[in-house]
Order: sequence, then structure tokens, then C-alpha cells
Amino acid sequence: MPLTAYLPKEPTMIRLTLDEARTLSLSILRHAGFSEAQAQAVTATVVAGERDGCASHGLYRVLGCVSSLKAGKVVADAEPEVIDQAPSIVRVDARGGFSQLAFQAGLPVLADKARTNGIAALAINRCVHFSALWVEIEQLTELGLVALACNPSHAWVAPAGGSKPIFGTNPIAFGWPRAGKHPFIFDFATSAIARGDIELHRRAGKPIPEGWGIDASGQPSTSAEAVMNGAMLTFGGHKGSALAAMVELIAGPLIGDLTSAESLAYDAGSKSSPYHGELIIALDPQRFLGAAADAHLARAEALFDGIEGQGARLPSQRRYDARAGSLADGVQIPQALYDDLNALLN
Amino acid sequence: MPLTAYLPKEPTMIRLTLDEARTLSLSILRHAGFSEAQAQAVTATVVAGERDGCASHGLYRVLGCVSSLKAGKVVADAEPEVIDQAPSIVRVDARGGFSQLAFQAGLPVLADKARTNGIAALAINRCVHFSALWVEIEQLTELGLVALACNPSHAWVAPAGGSKPIFGTNPIAFGWPRAGKHPFIFDFATSAIARGDIELHRRAGKPIPEGWGIDASGQPSTSAEAVMNGAMLTFGGHKGSALAAMVELIAGPLIGDLTSAESLAYDAGSKSSPYHGELIIALDPQRFLGAAADAHLARAEALFDGIEGQGARLPSQRRYDARAGSLADGVQIPQALYDDLNALLN
Repeated sequence: MPLTAYLPKEPTMIRLTLDEARTLSLSILRHAGFSEAQAQAVTATVVAGERDGCASHGLYRVLGCVSSLKAGKVVADAEPEVIDQAPSIVRVDARGGFSQLAFQAGLPVLADKARTNGIAALAINRCVHFSALWVEIEQLTELGLVALACNPSHAWVAPAGGSKPIFGTNPIAFGWPRAGKHPFIFDFATSAIARGDIELHRRAGKPIPEGWGIDASGQPSTSAEAVMNGAMLTFGGHKGSALAAMVELIAGPLIGDLTSAESLAYDAGSKSSPYHGELIIALDPQRFLGAAADAHLARAEALFDGIEGQGARLPSQRRYDARAGSLADGVQIPQALYDDLNALLN
Repeated sequence: MPLTAYLPKEPTMIRLTLDEARTLSLSILRHAGFSEAQAQAVTATVVAGERDGCASHGLYRVLGCVSSLKAGKVVADAEPEVIDQAPSIVRVDARGGFSQLAFQAGLPVLADKARTNGIAALAINRCVHFSALWVEIEQLTELGLVALACNPSHAWVAPAGGSKPIFGTNPIAFGWPRAGKHPFIFDFATSAIARGDIELHRRAGKPIPEGWGIDASGQPSTSAEAVMNGAMLTFGGHKGSALAAMVELIAGPLIGDLTSAESLAYDAGSKSSPYHGELIIALDPQRFLGAAADAHLARAEALFDGIEGQGARLPSQRRYDARAGSLADGVQIPQALYDDLNALLN
């Protein structure tokens, strides 16, 4: 059942503390048969998503983890293998487990390589992927590193000038550490809109705005149903399309992993989380700038002040606001979702 | 005089062989007082621009080189200094000369570091910059490397949700090598449109499309004049704006160089080429993939086939078509531009 099914106009909501949310996720994943390490890693990210007001990357995802396991599309006790590929490349073979544990395994090696060499890459292979990238980016900014991440997904998006889906929603995320402040982080799909938003319109019987997609014959369409059977479009026309292609290349063949078309073929209709790779690049300002780092990072603050000073928002502000609320008051999820989650404990 | 002044509806055109174009550029730059190395490096890129049908990065730019020198905004005989900053970082101090010679100086070190470590960065500092990034990207793909480049420019573009210019047109370019074929390369401004296109509409007295910019009071405007005195907008709304901010950060403070606002302030109204830095990242597929590289690069070809097979174009196709024509028949430039160029030889 898609998340949107849990979001009628006036859903009954239930409030959970973050600890309760964590315990609920952990209990379900353990009960489903995931190893403790996989369950802990997944739980950390879904609770972060719920905490930051990203319900589509929150507790709802636990349902998908369990159904992916039942569909045989994820390895419940996968232990990631860390491979020292080159002085500035670490590879992690997720061995069919979730990306989160693979990322955790690779993170200290990536950070070490970035600090030693100035720039380094982490390639995660053979992972089941549903994580928001900002969760990972933020762990790099907490270490004082600048970070860039991307991954393919499933082939739902047509290239500019084309009519057939070949790209995934292919998110790109970037993070910049800020002393004493939340990091500057953005994380967006290179598709015009998230697939879940089109599904939301379909369920509500509402037309979608022009520019989101085309029907199976390649014509622009405002029918959610027609676009889901046709193709989504990229954001920003040919420029967004070029970026989507870049993500396919650098987080696909460059790291020896699947493109979105190959990942969709592998899924074979099971509607599980995509199985593919992920590329993360980390850059160390201290290594670029040496003793002058603090002075130059202060100039970045002037840029942020210039953006916020004219009333524009920094990309993650809404998430940080939600976080402050959740840390104080916990999170709210629809009662129906809470019930379905609890049903997995039986 | 802007390029657009040379482009009336039916300009008289003059045809030059690529050798003639090269000789013309070299002669003018030498006559103006540039060192042989600076003159050669600039000439290579302006002839490449003219050859590939990018008139705005072609011979026209030689005029700007000479006027920048007269304005005291470029060092005629600058010798770039190459600094081995870290195992995966090379810095080149352009010492106030053009970016092209600095790039040439750093290129072999960047390639060597990428091949040794898998990923590496070239930071060019204190350069006068007017080059199209694809010219540099292509030199990296010719070495079998994947490449990503970006730079700030002058603060002409407002952030999403804001009204005051703070970003440059901040181009992002990417290249992917293809065996026996032209590389996959894109190179686009993160602004909705090039500033020159707005100038073109202003001179023609034509309204500009909505979405290109806002007036000085922050209101959407279709007046080219009002937008040039207000602010341009980014492509793709908040996503393009986020990318523009990323370029400011990683090709500005991260490499110890100017933001677009700082570069515009340095210009102090002289309308010279922007003075700032540039970041280039190179990744070596052989180092990521080892013996499996050829097999994985073949899967990238399947992606390109999937794009072209549905009638969509790859980003640089127009340039490659123009190149084929220019190599056979030479290039054509407006007679008036040719006359102005030759006047610089007196």
C-alpha cells in the first residue's frame, strides 16, 4: 500500500516519542528476520526521516523493508564487505543488504581517505536502496567534510526530447559543514516531481500540473494515471535531463553497478526497493585550504547571509524546523500506518 | 561592444579556415602584449569555440581579452604556478592570467593523480575566466577520464525565493569518455538563460520570456532592460538555485577563491572577464573498475543508445555537427567582427 493511502484528508494521527518510533521500527525489523546490524542501520534512517518531517522516508518505509524481504529482494543478514579499491576510492559490497549498513561500514574509510588525500569516493555496490541521501550527507558534514552523493533508481523518467522512461528519479544531494550551525544540505530528485506525488494525485482523482510527465504516446498529459503508464519528465528541461544522465553514469557503470533500466528489470514487477549502487564523494576543506580554512569558510557564511538576508530560505530549513519540533514533542503518524506497522509484529 | 552587435538580421559573413582563425587570434594577442604561452592557450580555446559553432565563446572573445588587458584586469605574461596541495589535489595559481594556461599547467598533474588515486581535484586560483568548460572537459575525456567542472562568475542571478543577485551564471560541465566516439559532454549555466541572450533581446527591443528574470523590485518581468538592472533567475526553480549555491561554495571558498559577488566587486564596473577560481574533478574508470572497466563502459553505451534510439539528442550533438562542418569548410564570422579584430593589429 503506498504512503498516500495513509494520508486521507483528515487522518487520525498518533503521537510517538522518537524512542518509541525507534523501538517500533527495530522490533518489526528484528521480527521480520533482519540481523541486528541491518535493523539498527535502517531504523536510524527511518527515524531521522520521520523526525525531520519527511514522512515518505520515515516509518512508512519499514513496511517496504519487510515486503522486500518477503519478495526475496533483500538479504536479511547481509554483512557489507569493505574493499580498499584505490588510495582515494573505497568500495563497499552491500551483498544484497540495505544501503544504510553499507554506508556505515564505508563512512570511516571514506572520511579517512578524504582527510589524507583531499578528495575521495565511496562506491556502494549491490545494495537495496530507499534512503534519503541527506541522512548520509549529514554524517559527512558532521565530520567537517563537504559531500556530494547520487544514485539511480528505477527507469520511470524520459530524457528531454524523448518519450520513453530510461532514467530513474536520480537524486543528487550536497552538503557543506557550518561551524555551530546546521549544515547547508540539499537533496532533490532530478525528476520534475517525486513519483509519490503523482500517485497522490492519481488516488485523489486530481489532474497533475503540466510538465510533470507525458503519456505512453509521448504527449504531455495532466492525467496522473496516463503519466504513471507513460513517463515522468526531468526538472529543468534539457539541463535536468543531462544531470539525470550523469547520475546514471557515475552511480551506475562507473562504479560497476546497475542503471535505472537494469534495476527496474531486476525488480521484475515485485515493486520492491530499487537494487543498485550509490556514489558518494567527500572533499576536505582543511586539505584544500590548510591554515586558511577558517577564513575561507567564513566567506561561505557571507553567502548564506546574503541568501537569507533577502528573505530566501536555505534548502534544508524546513527539515531543521521539523526536527526541532520532533525533538521537543515527538512525531505524529497516521493511525492506519501505526496499525499496519504493529500488524507486522504478529 | 557585445557580440550581439555583430549579429544583425543579415550580417555579411566572412569565411576563415581554422588555421586562419588561429593565426588571426594569435597575431592580435601577441600584438596586444600577451606572452606566447598565454596567447597560444587562449587561441586554442577560442578557435575550438568558433569551430564548434559557439560564437559567444569564439573569436569574439579576443576583443574581450585585449580590453581586459587595457583595463588592467589580466596579467599579460602570467606564468601559472603548480602546487602539489595533497595526494589528490593539485592547485594552480594562475597569477592573474587567463584560466586556459593555468588549466594546461595543471592538467597532466590532475590526470596523474586521478590515475594513481582514482579521483582527484584541480583547483585553479586567481584566474581571469571566460572559457567554455567543455573545452577543458574534453581534454580530460580524451585521457579516458570522467570529469566534472564548475566556476562562479559575476553576481547577476537571484536565489529562488529572493530578489537580489548573489549567484553567478555558474556553469556546470560533465564529461564521459566513449571509445571511438565523441565524448558525452554537457555544459550549462545554472541561470535560466545566458546573460548574452537577454542582451540580445534588449538590443532587438523584444520582450523576454517569463522565468528569465525579475526587475529591481523583485517582480517577474519580461523587459530585458528591467531584468538586466534587476536579477536573472536560475533554471529549474529551487533545484537550480541549490546547484548555483553549490558552485559558489565548491569553486569559491572551498578552493580559497572569490564568490560571484566578490568577483563582481573586484571588477568595479570595468566589465572585464570575471576573475575568480575554478574546480575540476577527475575520476578514472580504470581505477574504479579494474579489469571489468570495458564491460561496464559498454553498459554506458546501452544508456546512450536508449536515449538516441527514442529520437532524443545527446547534449553535445549540435557542437559535434558544427565541428564536422568547420573541419571541412572552415568557420564564418561577421564582417564587422572581422574588421574590429583586424583593427587591433594596428
